[in-house]
Amino acid sequence: MQLARHGATAANGVNRQALSAAEIAARRELIAWGAELGLTPHTDAAGNFFLRLEGRDPAAAPVLSGSHLDSQPTGGKFDGVYGVLAALEAVQAIRESGVTPGRAIEVVAWMNEEGSRFAPGMMGSAAYAGDAMLTDLLTVRDAEGISVEQGLADMARAFPQVPERALGRPVAAYVEAHIEQGPVLEKEGFGIGVVTGIQGKRTFRVAVSGEDAHAGTAALHDRKDALLAATAIIQALSKALHDDADIVKFTVGRLEVKPNAPSVVAGHAQFSIDLRHPVESRLRELGDRVAGICAANAGPCAVVVDELVTAMPLEFPLTMQAEVRDAAKRLGLRSMDLPSAAGHDSRYLHGICPTAMIFVPCKDGISHNEAESATADDLYDGARVLAETLLSLAER
Amino acid sequence: MQLARHGATAANGVNRQALSAAEIAARRELIAWGAELGLTPHTDAAGNFFLRLEGRDPAAAPVLSGSHLDSQPTGGKFDGVYGVLAALEAVQAIRESGVTPGRAIEVVAWMNEEGSRFAPGMMGSAAYAGDAMLTDLLTVRDAEGISVEQGLADMARAFPQVPERALGRPVAAYVEAHIEQGPVLEKEGFGIGVVTGIQGKRTFRVAVSGEDAHAGTAALHDRKDALLAATAIIQALSKALHDDADIVKFTVGRLEVKPNAPSVVAGHAQFSIDLRHPVESRLRELGDRVAGICAANAGPCAVVVDELVTAMPLEFPLTMQAEVRDAAKRLGLRSMDLPSAAGHDSRYLHGICPTAMIFVPCKDGISHNEAESATADDLYDGARVLAETLLSLAER
Repeated sequence: MQLARHGATAANGVNRQALSAAEIAARRELIAWGAELGLTPHTDAAGNFFLRLEGRDPAAAPVLSGSHLDSQPTGGKFDGVYGVLAALEAVQAIRESGVTPGRAIEVVAWMNEEGSRFAPGMMGSAAYAGDAMLTDLLTVRDAEGISVEQGLADMARAFPQVPERALGRPVAAYVEAHIEQGPVLEKEGFGIGVVTGIQGKRTFRVAVSGEDAHAGTAALHDRKDALLAATAIIQALSKALHDDADIVKFTVGRLEVKPNAPSVVAGHAQFSIDLRHPVESRLRELGDRVAGICAANAGPCAVVVDELVTAMPLEFPLTMQAEVRDAAKRLGLRSMDLPSAAGHDSRYLHGICPTAMIFVPCKDGISHNEAESATADDLYDGARVLAETLLSLAER
Repeated sequence: MQLARHGATAANGVNRQALSAAEIAARRELIAWGAELGLTPHTDAAGNFFLRLEGRDPAAAPVLSGSHLDSQPTGGKFDGVYGVLAALEAVQAIRESGVTPGRAIEVVAWMNEEGSRFAPGMMGSAAYAGDAMLTDLLTVRDAEGISVEQGLADMARAFPQVPERALGRPVAAYVEAHIEQGPVLEKEGFGIGVVTGIQGKRTFRVAVSGEDAHAGTAALHDRKDALLAATAIIQALSKALHDDADIVKFTVGRLEVKPNAPSVVAGHAQFSIDLRHPVESRLRELGDRVAGICAANAGPCAVVVDELVTAMPLEFPLTMQAEVRDAAKRLGLRSMDLPSAAGHDSRYLHGICPTAMIFVPCKDGISHNEAESATADDLYDGARVLAETLLSLAER
């Protein structure tokens, strides 16, 4: 609730964009809480943020746990933030129990998970894991033309006392706690979800080019109406990718029109496609149809389709799933296995170290919405399982 | 070409929004040109701008001639500006011929004809003619939240030396010169168009409300995707209002989505409808179908349709059409009669005084586009016909 003040919206939600003043304020609060626990902060060239609880062997690769502090424009209080604060609570509990873990444990907040201000998302974890080149990310600009590089400079200027360490240092293991962002745990009556993997995702940017013309005078057969073509393409994609079984997830969440004036036939329209499926072969097949459907429904307009993200489905190591399941059992908490329908920074950490995720229920499965909610009891149980899991991993 | 520097775009067009710095700069230039000719400037509470050539009877209602200086975001150099400058040229020619007209002749630039920054358009002429309440217009805000009232204050602050006169003073007659914004004159080989009337126009704002949700997790049957519903509605409207004869003009030029993020099912979408037809009964019938089609295609979303402008087709007085036709004939120029497919400030002046319009050809009929063009010869001929018409009217 205290972090949710930074970027608070009128509708009781959060709009805390990556590298914004609101995120800087949230990070300042986090540093203060870490200082009370004797945790030392550091950052890296990708703007990821760490709070380190030292272990008995300072030279050993640390166990990492966290998530992200940035949100969607009309986001909630829990998505991302919960994983960072659960890790902080876990570290506090470990420290207050008098135990010094074998390996250091680092609380982490990854830079720009949501991809809302700067597309695509998960920039910080992708750069950390070597899946994205930092030099490429630095040139990405937000809607106002501000680059990631400028955003990172803003963030660095706010915290001159926080040292920068090398990007992509070795990690012994990574555990991310998160609200489920779906209805399964709540419906099935379980407080802890052992996440088995993450469904695949392909994202596209579709640019439709026509010609500006006067809405009152331009003849129908002369028009190259990019907005009309874009709506036809979106409808065609929605029908072609429809799945009665509701496994395919197809979303157009962003659409921008130029010049976007009521009495001008629009010469340009650009929209996003977010396509997800848990099965790799099916995701490949569906995604490969996108460009053809766009071209076939563009009418007199030209259309260019760029694939921005190709993230195939993944499964977390069974040993890491067991770590979470066993920790819950030791605490007397009931858990169920389930896949993650949403993407997370864990996707990229999975590529460089043993990774696990812990889900807790959220109200009605609602997320990416200002009404996002979760109970204190569920959040507490998740943090306990996280502490138990981290301590076990830090002793390996 | 000199006025086109104010708001010049990289693609050789003009973006000169109503009451913007660019329009202030254009008005400053106009005042300077007027001063060279001994014309006195004044303004009114609606931000309309006038340059007055005094007549032999200063108490008689003046003849007005002009158009507007604001443009579409990707507009051209001629739409509106031509009518203002042709009037200035006509006044200069009359003055330099040594004639003092019976009535004063005032060059006018109406405030916010395009309706691009502040919707709807033709605010200045509508307020002048008493078709809109100034107090209602003042509260209209642009996309940045700046009100017309603030914009008018910006404009007034720039010109403290320009006196404000009462809004809606009596007018003896109004003549507006304009590029055709259509292909007819060019195709038929006529340099002068005698405008018979203006086709009707109804504009609507359609707001679609659903629910923000996570693109990766939200179940299909739970989604209330406002963007998907908006695209379905636009496609349905486009099909229902389609006209093989190409007389109905249906355009959706503006579409805005919230939160407009790639991985969020959009909870809100809002779009504009611009519907035109030259026959009143048909325009009524077509426009009355809009709300029903929107409701029938909104799926799980709620939809609210507001009609913003209801402007029925109109015919200019035959005597005024004859004034233009005869003036062209006296100058040895060939003219043809044609209706205006676009709306103009003349619509509102028509309600308070005898009104006429003169069209000149524009290249390929292209307008509301940075490629808008017209020849110097055609523009010159139009200004000559305008001068001849104004002088004749000022002697009545």
